[in-house]
Amino acid sequence: MDLVKADRAVGHLVAPSSIAIIGASSDPLKPAGRTVRYLQKYGYSGDIFPINPTREEVFGLRCYPSVEALPVVPELAVVALSASNAADAVESCGRLGVAAAIVFASGFGELDAQGLQLQDELLEAARRSGIRLLGPNCNGVVGVASGTAATFMSGIDDESLTLRDDGVAFVSQSGAMGAFILKQAQSSGLGVGRFFSTGNEADISLPEILAGLVRDESTKVMLGYVEGVRAPAELRTALDEAQRRGVPVCLMKVGRSVAGAAAAASHTGALAGQDVVFDGVLAQYGALRAQDLDSLLDVGRIFAFAPAPAGRRMSIVTLSGGAGVLLTDGAADHHLEVPRWDDEWAGQLRKVLPPFAAVRNPIDVTGALINDCSLLRKALEVAIRHPDTDIIVVMLGNMQTQEAEACQILADAAATTDKPVVTVWVGGTGNAIGLLAAHGLAAFPEPMRAVRAVAALADYHHPRQRALSRTAGNEAPAEDVGALDEAAGKELLRRHGIPTVREAAVTSAEEAVAAADELGYPAVVKLLSVDVLHKSDQGFVAVGLNDAKAVGAAAARILSSAQASAVSDRRLVVQPMVASQTELILGMRHDATFGPAIVLGTGGVLAEVAADVQVRLPPLRHDEALRMMDELRYTALLQGVRGKAAVDRSALARTIVAFSDFVVAEGHRYDSVEINPLMIDASGQPVAVDALVILRPLDVSP
Amino acid sequence: MDLVKADRAVGHLVAPSSIAIIGASSDPLKPAGRTVRYLQKYGYSGDIFPINPTREEVFGLRCYPSVEALPVVPELAVVALSASNAADAVESCGRLGVAAAIVFASGFGELDAQGLQLQDELLEAARRSGIRLLGPNCNGVVGVASGTAATFMSGIDDESLTLRDDGVAFVSQSGAMGAFILKQAQSSGLGVGRFFSTGNEADISLPEILAGLVRDESTKVMLGYVEGVRAPAELRTALDEAQRRGVPVCLMKVGRSVAGAAAAASHTGALAGQDVVFDGVLAQYGALRAQDLDSLLDVGRIFAFAPAPAGRRMSIVTLSGGAGVLLTDGAADHHLEVPRWDDEWAGQLRKVLPPFAAVRNPIDVTGALINDCSLLRKALEVAIRHPDTDIIVVMLGNMQTQEAEACQILADAAATTDKPVVTVWVGGTGNAIGLLAAHGLAAFPEPMRAVRAVAALADYHHPRQRALSRTAGNEAPAEDVGALDEAAGKELLRRHGIPTVREAAVTSAEEAVAAADELGYPAVVKLLSVDVLHKSDQGFVAVGLNDAKAVGAAAARILSSAQASAVSDRRLVVQPMVASQTELILGMRHDATFGPAIVLGTGGVLAEVAADVQVRLPPLRHDEALRMMDELRYTALLQGVRGKAAVDRSALARTIVAFSDFVVAEGHRYDSVEINPLMIDASGQPVAVDALVILRPLDVSP
Repeated sequence: MDLVKADRAVGHLVAPSSIAIIGASSDPLKPAGRTVRYLQKYGYSGDIFPINPTREEVFGLRCYPSVEALPVVPELAVVALSASNAADAVESCGRLGVAAAIVFASGFGELDAQGLQLQDELLEAARRSGIRLLGPNCNGVVGVASGTAATFMSGIDDESLTLRDDGVAFVSQSGAMGAFILKQAQSSGLGVGRFFSTGNEADISLPEILAGLVRDESTKVMLGYVEGVRAPAELRTALDEAQRRGVPVCLMKVGRSVAGAAAAASHTGALAGQDVVFDGVLAQYGALRAQDLDSLLDVGRIFAFAPAPAGRRMSIVTLSGGAGVLLTDGAADHHLEVPRWDDEWAGQLRKVLPPFAAVRNPIDVTGALINDCSLLRKALEVAIRHPDTDIIVVMLGNMQTQEAEACQILADAAATTDKPVVTVWVGGTGNAIGLLAAHGLAAFPEPMRAVRAVAALADYHHPRQRALSRTAGNEAPAEDVGALDEAAGKELLRRHGIPTVREAAVTSAEEAVAAADELGYPAVVKLLSVDVLHKSDQGFVAVGLNDAKAVGAAAARILSSAQASAVSDRRLVVQPMVASQTELILGMRHDATFGPAIVLGTGGVLAEVAADVQVRLPPLRHDEALRMMDELRYTALLQGVRGKAAVDRSALARTIVAFSDFVVAEGHRYDSVEINPLMIDASGQPVAVDALVILRPLDVSP
Repeated sequence: MDLVKADRAVGHLVAPSSIAIIGASSDPLKPAGRTVRYLQKYGYSGDIFPINPTREEVFGLRCYPSVEALPVVPELAVVALSASNAADAVESCGRLGVAAAIVFASGFGELDAQGLQLQDELLEAARRSGIRLLGPNCNGVVGVASGTAATFMSGIDDESLTLRDDGVAFVSQSGAMGAFILKQAQSSGLGVGRFFSTGNEADISLPEILAGLVRDESTKVMLGYVEGVRAPAELRTALDEAQRRGVPVCLMKVGRSVAGAAAAASHTGALAGQDVVFDGVLAQYGALRAQDLDSLLDVGRIFAFAPAPAGRRMSIVTLSGGAGVLLTDGAADHHLEVPRWDDEWAGQLRKVLPPFAAVRNPIDVTGALINDCSLLRKALEVAIRHPDTDIIVVMLGNMQTQEAEACQILADAAATTDKPVVTVWVGGTGNAIGLLAAHGLAAFPEPMRAVRAVAALADYHHPRQRALSRTAGNEAPAEDVGALDEAAGKELLRRHGIPTVREAAVTSAEEAVAAADELGYPAVVKLLSVDVLHKSDQGFVAVGLNDAKAVGAAAARILSSAQASAVSDRRLVVQPMVASQTELILGMRHDATFGPAIVLGTGGVLAEVAADVQVRLPPLRHDEALRMMDELRYTALLQGVRGKAAVDRSALARTIVAFSDFVVAEGHRYDSVEINPLMIDASGQPVAVDALVILRPLDVSP
């Protein structure tokens, strides 16, 4: 793709010096009539040339019989003719030296084979002269700065509407969705200053427009509504160019659910459907993807109005403690920090806010704000000055009578700083968002939308640190809390009807061999000790022992290694190895609010990285246990994958119910109980292979 | 909890026969002044008794010096006094037989120890007589049907506001957030007819109000804003009661990020933080949880306005193909069906819609709708009649001048059917949503929000079928497509610099033993055959073979079992076993749009259930390969969990780059390439253990 050519095409479309409307109509509701009206209404400053051999005048403008009859060669032609007449018009324009043409008509490639042929002829007509072509089957272009409303969309047919340009450009393959989104944006105070509907993209494609826009200094952010990528190489070039020049791009792509047709001979193929590839391409070039219209415009809003922050640290200013909690939650979701303020800074705020105010971030200036807006100004002054503040997020609501005053205070505060001041206003008259936008502030009607937008801004300028590995779970129990050893724990569970692995507790290598001979091979030998809660992390477990010799050696090694680690309680437990790789975790923990809760989770390595758990309060019925199983994210594991046995659903549910009954009867005695793993054996039966039972301190009553 | 008592408490608060305002003020901006004004403005029909010994009259009402001086005992008292005077007032009210009191003042338990003592005294004062207490530190109650605006919130201080009741009840622990949400709802046409701010919940708690509301026939849906559950048992009772009576509940709980303080002696404990327990409780009772304000109100809206659907099948009516695609995407996200219409039904629509219309669902009546709204009526008639239609979703936008007409058509259509008619309107004047709500329709300003709400409705009445297991990946390659055998595939990769496991291809058990002796134990023996692409699914793989005897036996078994399965190409490959359980998948597949794409995914059993992949287009640089690794959802696996080795990041990145270079050079020759598993060995090095290379058909040019 020729970037200079792309740049020029965008210029011809969005800021032409003169425009001819071929097929101009005096009917204010026909496309050709709308276009002339809109150019007049939105203050197009160049020459408008209606072309129609049957008219003398259109909306007060002299009408010409043909393009050839014009006094000058227009830069842009809007072809408002039927599909069958469009090619001739484009041909004539091209011959005269018109730079670009927009073809509104549908009935081309999107319709049928005949339409596709018409489209090929249209493209051919354009190629002969090199005239650039937008469409067909598109609804045109809006360039706010120049008043180029070269479109027939009904959305801007609104006397009260004024269009603004906040440096947001928007390209849509869908005409209707483009029109909806453009109107929605302008109505909510987001100046989408350049809009392009690309339609069938016979010539100019969405990526080419992005590539052209990115070279324009006034472009702060580019949005796109994508139905299908016709020019993949051009898209890569455009995204690469945008990334290099630091212009954020956000695309909303639909058709996600229409899976690509490629046969999946391999698992990877099956996983990486087309939509995943599109995601990958955006990730590759640092572009964003929106899954709904709100998100698309929210991204536009934050990049249009908020400067680049110096980091990911938020200071939150609200008039309610609840709002502060809500925004702090949202910040945590997106790895944004809300640093707690120290005494010195809290003291500065304390001096200017009411006694009940929260002054350590999130800041709650309290409802006193409603009667004294100066509190907002004072809190903002301190928050902006604080060295830990990279971004200020302010949440207000209602305050119908103080709306204008509060918005002015926010605008004045934002004008004093290079830090982004992002605002949320819920309820009230509904006008605050527009008022704040008019002040040039990023304003949102919903707090979580604001936080998501802030996260997009922060991610763009300061990518979040990737997940660190979880702390290994090898904590010793608290000093005064005891634990049952593994064998005692399972004995307890067995008494309550939970199937457990057969096993024997022994104290020497010789006894271990005898036990293994009895229990069968392959065998497992583990350290049995109340001193070591997480045996496998410390190498105190040996699995897959195929014969007596292996058992004896493993047992001796574990005992001596425990001795070397100064473990005083050194016994062994011997089990036959359970042939399964499907592991669950079934446990009980005390919740500070609800008391004992039953936790069922996928186990093994998944438990380390996925946190796939279902929690319920006892007592549980059989059907509730089944629902817990079914609602695990990775419930498919229970249905047997990779040749593993499917679980006996009823048996597992019975085990969960038995565990729940145990918790109801005796849960108060234990701080936590964890069966980990609860394995699904080769015949689909659950079997508790290890259990950790932590006692409650004796002085705590149930 | 006494459900009858709960019921009565709600009645006293929201529909009392008379109200005393203790501390009544003539200042229209003070709480006690606002309450009197609001009761008057919103048409409270019972007696209003201002109480203030210093006044004769308040807002035209006779003012009494004390509760004792009233001509009758009021049912409800609003205590608008300071914290220190509240207990005495409640005491007096209780003694007289007032049924309930609302205490506005803050400065109680939420503040400090002294405040907590005041709160205890307040509760004690109430308990002596049994008067029920809402608050303290709350902003009151709104009961729209009775005009009981017993609140001081500034949000309803709006001359133009009329309140409506659509059967939605809302209880908020946060006063400010409650006020914002109530105003937001009423302004957008959602009649939250009963509102309660519970504040410190000294007596009446959020769960008790839910339990009281649920017994009222007029309650269609209950919403809650929760900061902390003070009455867990009552919450369970309320949710259980709601579930039994079929009243949907949706709670938004904040404070998610403030993890519970319980020490985590077990992994389960660490996973099941408090928030997970709260989620579990809601799931247990079929209640919904909202993560943002929009979702909370959207749930209220759908249950208030949409009847129960007969199933999960949507018919979509729009004026643009793009909107139909968007809504179909959304439906797929939520397991809602969009059944394709057959010829007969398509024919019925064809007769009444323009020739370019899409008539098979999603239905696109085309932009002709803008000039002829009757098309909408006609399409709706057919969609409502279609037996596969459980839910109708209509998306329109802009159409400023046809807004009222289109809304009327939608309302008329909805009136003809018991099926839910859900509407989306984007852009336009911004008034359509309110207009549709006034017609009693569920209307949304954003299409994905509408689909999420429809999903909540459908899930409530017709729970979605849980995930079925994925199809086993055992497809044979297409007839005319060949594959390299495993050994040849790895040889190809080895030539391009990808580390592969050492191995030997053999044809007999004897050769297998000799190879294993050479390569080392434990060994792996696999069938090597171009006829079998997914060996392990068919039992053609033996791992963990510790000696020559085991290798010989496994090799013989695999060969004979392959013979029994009529596999004609029967060779074996012998490898030393790679000691690792961290598996990745590295592959290439052709995307229909972008061509060859590189896929990196977590492997093993995770690949079956998690679809954790990153996709990029070649060529890839080293830093891009590192980013792919870091952006895997389960990237923590690469950092070493459960005692596994952390990956050598640089070595893995080099391998990915080498693979990418291979794809650039030779990718056009292969339909797909999948290294599965790419294992991370004990020293953290990647090693390709198996590879499946599918050739492109020869007659397809690159």
